[in-house]
Amino acid sequence: MNFELNKAISVLERTPSTLISLLNDLPKEWTQENEGDSTWSPFDVVGHLIHGEKTDWMVRTEIILGDSPNKEFEPFDRFAQFENSKGKTLKVLLEQFKELRAENLKTLRVKNISAADYSRKGIHPEFGAITLSQLLSAWVVHDLGHIAQISRVMAKQYKEEVGPWPKYLTILNSTPKE
Amino acid sequence: MNFELNKAISVLERTPSTLISLLNDLPKEWTQENEGDSTWSPFDVVGHLIHGEKTDWMVRTEIILGDSPNKEFEPFDRFAQFENSKGKTLKVLLEQFKELRAENLKTLRVKNISAADYSRKGIHPEFGAITLSQLLSAWVVHDLGHIAQISRVMAKQYKEEVGPWPKYLTILNSTPKE
Repeated sequence: MNFELNKAISVLERTPSTLISLLNDLPKEWTQENEGDSTWSPFDVVGHLIHGEKTDWMVRTEIILGDSPNKEFEPFDRFAQFENSKGKTLKVLLEQFKELRAENLKTLRVKNISAADYSRKGIHPEFGAITLSQLLSAWVVHDLGHIAQISRVMAKQYKEEVGPWPKYLTILNSTPKE
Repeated sequence: MNFELNKAISVLERTPSTLISLLNDLPKEWTQENEGDSTWSPFDVVGHLIHGEKTDWMVRTEIILGDSPNKEFEPFDRFAQFENSKGKTLKVLLEQFKELRAENLKTLRVKNISAADYSRKGIHPEFGAITLSQLLSAWVVHDLGHIAQISRVMAKQYKEEVGPWPKYLTILNSTPKE
């Protein structure tokens, strides 16, 4: 599958409603627990997605498409959500993510990006030169990876409860990771 | 987290809307492709979930709670969806899954299952004796595992498009599995 902006947006635009459906109003045992030391709960992941909306994907897109000759991206803070989400409810975070994503996609759409822009470049702090289509593809995969992570972390809360079933419910045996 | 029926239902009842949000009306490249030989597309997975609603979880629950002394479960057909989904659209399958799940949870709720019933047993064709709470917990984990699978299969369609990002988007490096 080759990158096309409209097909990327078709995934990006539905992530908030998917997460609201998956998480909103669930008992806290499903949303506040993680999968072991230094891993993230569904609540933590939604905070991480909010920080990405604010400081990562669209900010980097603007750098690539902007007029400044400085194309270097700031490093992304992978731990900002632990401070930023403090005292907030999951409902508030989900709503904030929904609003930020809608704003970002509105901004993205009005840029009238064409296929000729896909190869324009920015400088990632670790990877060096990356293209606009790589960045926007990574945004999509990042969403899907975190939906999978949230599902996995929730599943693991029942690891002891399923008796012999982990043999077939292999998600229960998977390693914690982002 | 210990099994409690209402907390299990709180996850089971939202899986159809989560999958509709994640998949409905997406371009076919996202929903019809798999992650390699003998693996399943999101379309295949939804068909598999439908077959589970018809022949697995509630049928086995009825066996455990029913009056018959025969407590043996029929083996589950893991490949039924390849025939049953033929010629159908994903929209039709998602709607069918939604209806079957709603019916099954309606049936489950009116059984007035109490904590005393959680340890009642049925005979799994491979595992032998399993309890009602293990079966219902496995139903929840099975849903979550397939949401994670669908997200992973979708993510992998962009594996080549993200350039150097698989280093951090580790879902792209994960093994195909159910």
